[in-house]
Amino acid sequence: MASSDKQNRPKARLAKGFRDVDANEIRGLKRMLRIIEEVYENYGFEPVEQPFIEYTEALGKFLPDQDRPNEGVFSFQDDDEQWLSLRYDLTAPLARYVAENQQFLPTPFRSYRQGWVFRNEKPGPGRYRQFMQFDADTVGSASPAADAEVCMMAADTMEALGIPRGQYVMKVNNRKILDGVMIGTEIPLEKRLTVLRAIDKFDRLGINGVKALLGEGRKDESGDFAKGAELNNLQIERVLSLIITAHSSAKQITEGKYLPEEFKTEKDADWHLIDEMKSSFYNFEITMEGLRELEEIHKLTRASGYGSDRIRFDPSVVRGLEYYTGPVFECELLMEAKDEKGNLVRFGSVGGGGRYDDLVARFTGQSVPATGFSMGVSRLYSALKLLGKTEDKETTAPVVVLVMDKERQGDYQKMVQQLRAANIRAEMYVGTSGMKAQMKYADKRGSPLVVIQGGDEKARGEVTLKDLALGAQLASGVESREEYASQRLAQVSVPEADLVSEVKKMLARK
Amino acid sequence: MASSDKQNRPKARLAKGFRDVDANEIRGLKRMLRIIEEVYENYGFEPVEQPFIEYTEALGKFLPDQDRPNEGVFSFQDDDEQWLSLRYDLTAPLARYVAENQQFLPTPFRSYRQGWVFRNEKPGPGRYRQFMQFDADTVGSASPAADAEVCMMAADTMEALGIPRGQYVMKVNNRKILDGVMIGTEIPLEKRLTVLRAIDKFDRLGINGVKALLGEGRKDESGDFAKGAELNNLQIERVLSLIITAHSSAKQITEGKYLPEEFKTEKDADWHLIDEMKSSFYNFEITMEGLRELEEIHKLTRASGYGSDRIRFDPSVVRGLEYYTGPVFECELLMEAKDEKGNLVRFGSVGGGGRYDDLVARFTGQSVPATGFSMGVSRLYSALKLLGKTEDKETTAPVVVLVMDKERQGDYQKMVQQLRAANIRAEMYVGTSGMKAQMKYADKRGSPLVVIQGGDEKARGEVTLKDLALGAQLASGVESREEYASQRLAQVSVPEADLVSEVKKMLARK
Repeated sequence: MASSDKQNRPKARLAKGFRDVDANEIRGLKRMLRIIEEVYENYGFEPVEQPFIEYTEALGKFLPDQDRPNEGVFSFQDDDEQWLSLRYDLTAPLARYVAENQQFLPTPFRSYRQGWVFRNEKPGPGRYRQFMQFDADTVGSASPAADAEVCMMAADTMEALGIPRGQYVMKVNNRKILDGVMIGTEIPLEKRLTVLRAIDKFDRLGINGVKALLGEGRKDESGDFAKGAELNNLQIERVLSLIITAHSSAKQITEGKYLPEEFKTEKDADWHLIDEMKSSFYNFEITMEGLRELEEIHKLTRASGYGSDRIRFDPSVVRGLEYYTGPVFECELLMEAKDEKGNLVRFGSVGGGGRYDDLVARFTGQSVPATGFSMGVSRLYSALKLLGKTEDKETTAPVVVLVMDKERQGDYQKMVQQLRAANIRAEMYVGTSGMKAQMKYADKRGSPLVVIQGGDEKARGEVTLKDLALGAQLASGVESREEYASQRLAQVSVPEADLVSEVKKMLARK
Repeated sequence: MASSDKQNRPKARLAKGFRDVDANEIRGLKRMLRIIEEVYENYGFEPVEQPFIEYTEALGKFLPDQDRPNEGVFSFQDDDEQWLSLRYDLTAPLARYVAENQQFLPTPFRSYRQGWVFRNEKPGPGRYRQFMQFDADTVGSASPAADAEVCMMAADTMEALGIPRGQYVMKVNNRKILDGVMIGTEIPLEKRLTVLRAIDKFDRLGINGVKALLGEGRKDESGDFAKGAELNNLQIERVLSLIITAHSSAKQITEGKYLPEEFKTEKDADWHLIDEMKSSFYNFEITMEGLRELEEIHKLTRASGYGSDRIRFDPSVVRGLEYYTGPVFECELLMEAKDEKGNLVRFGSVGGGGRYDDLVARFTGQSVPATGFSMGVSRLYSALKLLGKTEDKETTAPVVVLVMDKERQGDYQKMVQQLRAANIRAEMYVGTSGMKAQMKYADKRGSPLVVIQGGDEKARGEVTLKDLALGAQLASGVESREEYASQRLAQVSVPEADLVSEVKKMLARK
């Protein structure tokens, strides 16, 4: 099968936008997932998982960049011509699951799931087409108590992962605030998505860019013209005033400047904003509903002792996904850390979510209110890694038993099995190279020690144990004055019968 | 967004051949994966994972049923017209990974990985298009020691999972036995795959069916004609004699009938077969090489104390995947169990593997010998489930705090947070229904107990704890004579300050 025909050889390369995951990251992710899981279980959520592939129509089209031809999703046709897609999040498949199995599920249905999702997007630095999410959802409850719980759970998760209070914040907003203004100013249904997308571009385009996109449209740097929502002046004014309020308040809150006198603690400043907005937008019914829901969330989280240092109203949170209908959440890491190049980076969002009351109704026609939160596991891992919180201290590299005599592999293998039976990670060198290459191999694996038994040792009924770390240290001359004594320390011969106990002793010294 | 337009509603249904995974299975799988992982780590393997999507040409075409139009793989075209595929196993992506990163890896490179793989096949009962595998591979060693280790590791894994010795067996064969006969009888390279496939159909078609497929071809039940390998009579005879030897010996070994006198224990009967085959096929060079490798595996596994009750030569093992070049393995569960309908089922294969010396060379042109084993996690789980070995005894359903007064949700939420802080799974009812529905919800969740605080209790500074299991038992009249006393047992009022300690006590009684 090995073809010498060089032209026909495939290239060994990762597909564009994908990556391999190494041992450190796998171990770190596993630890993280276990911690998140413990918190979610503690909150009474149950695991349920959906497959990676669903009918395209079942997933729907809710991604922010659905203007691209393939709408951000990997899709393919089945034998029977039906379109299938790889999941782009864990929420759309859950909605299908609940709609299909509702009669068997408790109401509300509280579940969590974790797994890889896929986006058919242009990859960039740190931006992959496969990434991991960890979701928790309460389906079948319209109560803000369900939203409040999601927020507290996200906050608890951050602390369980080792992120100190004050270094993260769960920001809460409500889509209804904007919806109310759009309904109140009679912006027609079909234009609302364009408006939402325009607002979502505020960070990148600034107020004038958004204004253009709410009006006639806008020519971008490449000269392409993006058609606008064509709102009238009154509509544009109201939407812009909302954005400006939102962004300036959010900025003030973040910078700690928003401190009205009548509030006792800085922590409540953000919630005071709700009162202010109530007086500005009192004639927009849905907006008022959204603000009341936020008050309820505030009340419940405060009752459990979660202040605005952990859960905070932030009117600038929008969330890109189209299916949100009420409260939306974003979990942001506030601390800065140095990246590999020594630059200060602020992590930003590591997860988000919100209420999606219409996702199940897409299938059944009957409203099933739902809310949930999705942790961006891959992003969160990068953050924890930069903070030095992913180090694996539990796993030791294996002890390597060298093969000094190929005819005696059976004996060496037996030693290895003895070590393994004593729960010591161990392996016989299974390659075909000589002593030097075997030592190099053990070094590259990071082995703490190697076991050697040549003909002489065999004759004496002994094995030699060589401490690799200490050996390397000695070889570098650090302790050259006591060379003789320390060489003995780095290498010791013991009776073969004591192999396991002597290896244990040597490992315990590390 | 909720459309009342019934025609446009998507159907809520799983895609064909896919399935949802429930809480019990997720917990059971997690436990299984952890155990497998511990064994593999103990053997010195390191985790490394490749993405779900690779370039189609990088994965290659090695599935047994590649005659189907899409060749068993889910594929789709990228924006730049390159073809991408979902991985159909974990071995092909590993080969790409090693070829791409060889200079950074130790030699041999010993790694493990676990994850979902996808086959674009016709689904059937118990046959899904997404299933989980757990692989371990040693890349960069041609030594039978690497193969022997894989076999011992698979055996250890079975026992770690709770399958008793004698109830599983790791069967070993060598592709070279057949290759040698094909080369020796001058069967041309391009016909060898057809021959392999014909042999693989022995169980289904019998000896005459295979004979036809080795010759002119064969008409199946539907009348379709499958073209044969068109071998000459001598070639057919030699191949058939090998199959007959293989299958009859395998049958005898399985039934314990193969007991040559010169061997002391029944356990070694299978390996005696190797000697017999050596005298039958002494003029086929590659066959002899294959037999010698098997002897080496035998020697090494025996040296570590693994008898033929655990690792056994079985010449009928072929393995469907095309990329194997030497020893092949199959792990079979031997015990029978009753399925849901009460029928006795024998589990059969729960994993397999073998040596694939040419997979990396596909990319680099340089031979990189490799061997590995793939555990069929989903199949293994089904087997363990039927054996009652997947039960989760660790997880308790959550305590539910009822909402007796909507205005007091903050108080109830606080109780829940106190329970959670004491590591008791707990939740406040977050739905919007009344008392009766709340009790029904707690029942459906399997809650051990509910916490109730109405106006009266609040006034007394108390909470009521109701034991749901005991309550149900009492309600069914089992202990009706001591009704009064037992009602007190099922339901108790305690000071609010003692909530956590009293709940703990009640849970401890279970």
